[in-house]
Amino acid sequence: MENFIFHNPVKLVFGKGCIAQIPELLPSVQTIMLVYGGGSIKRNGVYDQVLAALKGRNLVEFAGIEPNPRYETSMKAVLLARQRKVDFILGVGGGSVLDAVKFIAAAVPFTGKDPWDILAKGAEVKAAVPIGAVLTLPATGSEMNTNSVISRVETSEKLHFSSPLVYPVFSILDPETSVSLPVRQTVNGIVDSFVHVMEQYMTKDLNTPLQDRYCEAIISTLVEESPKVLYTPSDYDVRANIMWCATNALNGWCSCGCLQDWATHMIGHELTAFYGIDHAQSLAIVLPELWRAKIDSKRQKLVQFGRRVFAVSSAEEAIFKTEEFFHSIGMKTKLSDYGIQPADASKKIYERFMGRGDVALGEGGDINAAAARDILLRC
Amino acid sequence: MENFIFHNPVKLVFGKGCIAQIPELLPSVQTIMLVYGGGSIKRNGVYDQVLAALKGRNLVEFAGIEPNPRYETSMKAVLLARQRKVDFILGVGGGSVLDAVKFIAAAVPFTGKDPWDILAKGAEVKAAVPIGAVLTLPATGSEMNTNSVISRVETSEKLHFSSPLVYPVFSILDPETSVSLPVRQTVNGIVDSFVHVMEQYMTKDLNTPLQDRYCEAIISTLVEESPKVLYTPSDYDVRANIMWCATNALNGWCSCGCLQDWATHMIGHELTAFYGIDHAQSLAIVLPELWRAKIDSKRQKLVQFGRRVFAVSSAEEAIFKTEEFFHSIGMKTKLSDYGIQPADASKKIYERFMGRGDVALGEGGDINAAAARDILLRC
Repeated sequence: MENFIFHNPVKLVFGKGCIAQIPELLPSVQTIMLVYGGGSIKRNGVYDQVLAALKGRNLVEFAGIEPNPRYETSMKAVLLARQRKVDFILGVGGGSVLDAVKFIAAAVPFTGKDPWDILAKGAEVKAAVPIGAVLTLPATGSEMNTNSVISRVETSEKLHFSSPLVYPVFSILDPETSVSLPVRQTVNGIVDSFVHVMEQYMTKDLNTPLQDRYCEAIISTLVEESPKVLYTPSDYDVRANIMWCATNALNGWCSCGCLQDWATHMIGHELTAFYGIDHAQSLAIVLPELWRAKIDSKRQKLVQFGRRVFAVSSAEEAIFKTEEFFHSIGMKTKLSDYGIQPADASKKIYERFMGRGDVALGEGGDINAAAARDILLRC
Repeated sequence: MENFIFHNPVKLVFGKGCIAQIPELLPSVQTIMLVYGGGSIKRNGVYDQVLAALKGRNLVEFAGIEPNPRYETSMKAVLLARQRKVDFILGVGGGSVLDAVKFIAAAVPFTGKDPWDILAKGAEVKAAVPIGAVLTLPATGSEMNTNSVISRVETSEKLHFSSPLVYPVFSILDPETSVSLPVRQTVNGIVDSFVHVMEQYMTKDLNTPLQDRYCEAIISTLVEESPKVLYTPSDYDVRANIMWCATNALNGWCSCGCLQDWATHMIGHELTAFYGIDHAQSLAIVLPELWRAKIDSKRQKLVQFGRRVFAVSSAEEAIFKTEEFFHSIGMKTKLSDYGIQPADASKKIYERFMGRGDVALGEGGDINAAAARDILLRC
């Protein structure tokens, strides 16, 4: 086990009807900016619940955060927040809204030249407006971590930053808010959670048996609950179990002291940036071929995973079973399923990585632009 | 799944050599009280490491916290802390030291008549001196929770309190500090962790598959690592895995939204209070017979546990396998192993519980004084 520090101060409030607890959770603030997406929260009643809980508060609303949240849109919110002297931001939505809220929170007090530098140049986040979250789409784990991924349309870039200053003060997880999700978003959330765990688990073994079993616990639960959520989408317990898996998949707990990979995400982000496919779709395409490319270094963990989760005995079967699981919930795993030519994708992404002076992705830092190109050619 | 709130802001610093990080972890304070036990930290080098990290700081030392920490001893520390205007308390030791530190932290600013009321009457903890921890004995999870158990010799009482104000600001877990532990303390720690998980897991099923698997993950890892720690006590990874299990066993994470039992602890505390046997010894005695007494309501979970952890198929076998595991690491499971007459223990504890106007222990509140008496008669 490697040395580690774990510190996650997010107050999680989980369960039916929890949105009503916002007043007790809010710190003492003057002006709250309510940030949300395309309006689904108005159709499913979440918006009304939030407004009822915030009755009497000084509110500023900012709607229209898109999936793969954009720098351009977020900057409009930053200007509004500065203008109205917002001192708390409440994000209501899924990971895209929460990621945008984190960037907005860090950008509002940013004193450097351009907040884009937080993403593009790793400019230090020295302050952030405090934030809270009402989660409606279990997927990214953004409700209990420090990560944010933002896209810039102008340049087809999708970049991330991380800062402990953007941990939500509180996050409200009411599984009932996820009952009305379209199948595509439910499935995307499952695959996103699945791959988050894998990025922290499917690495060289470091003798971390408890962390391994935690990862397998999340994966096994996702595999078990996924068909149920497709056939009985209104079942509260199933929604609750999936929502809880998604938070657990990326709050730092299941990989304390472990190696981490994240190459699938780094390559997948580029697929989304160039072709606009959903984040989870990009991950389901890259993951199996990345595993096949790195099968020797990952073999011990692949075999353990296959044996414990799918009751198969080889690394090759474990990869096949993973693809089969994705297909079973309607998630495609090939570039051609989206009309993308592997040759085109591999060329574009190779050039982008080389344009950054090459890359060193994966737990061993041994996936460079050429290796990524080779993986994509097989996707 | 039941509604829940999870909020655990402890900063955990885990790994080799981490004691040296104390200066970066300490908040801005004037006078630090260093609290420890019987002096084992002077023999194993931990005391020297802590003093080196605190060089130049204004220190007050308080040594002599005993196993099953005493109210009487803790109150001496309270008076000293008040007198010297201590504004931070650093506990160095195992769960007994940390539990004492929590009580001292809450008692110093207590404005009621007698700090004993915090334990005996549930008097509200409105303030506490901030605390930190350097853990040397993985067992109680006290380093990452809000619990404290204190004994009063005068009255043979062992009582607990809990407050979010006594969460450590930071906890340092260096597995190397546990390498020199005597076998008895190592085994006690394993059994204590094992039973902590069981109190949160072995209940009526509430459809919480992820939480169940987390509990099974801790238990399976303990079962797997225990023989290793007995045969290769200096193996860092094994010590690290056991230390990590102990913290995970009682930091609130593995039972979010679950029912909890804790009857084994409540009865076990009385055995320790009356007969002075170790906390873990008391738990290993009570747990199997309590399960046998409640086998109908716990059957579904017992069967799941037996199947997943020990590869047996009945509730009865799961209980037997648990006893076998305790015996395999040298932990006894009968009152008579300690020269205690079941008739005497059951009478004493029945009378104590009735003296409190009877009790309602366990997840269903259906273990009263008479039921506890019957369980103890079989122990």
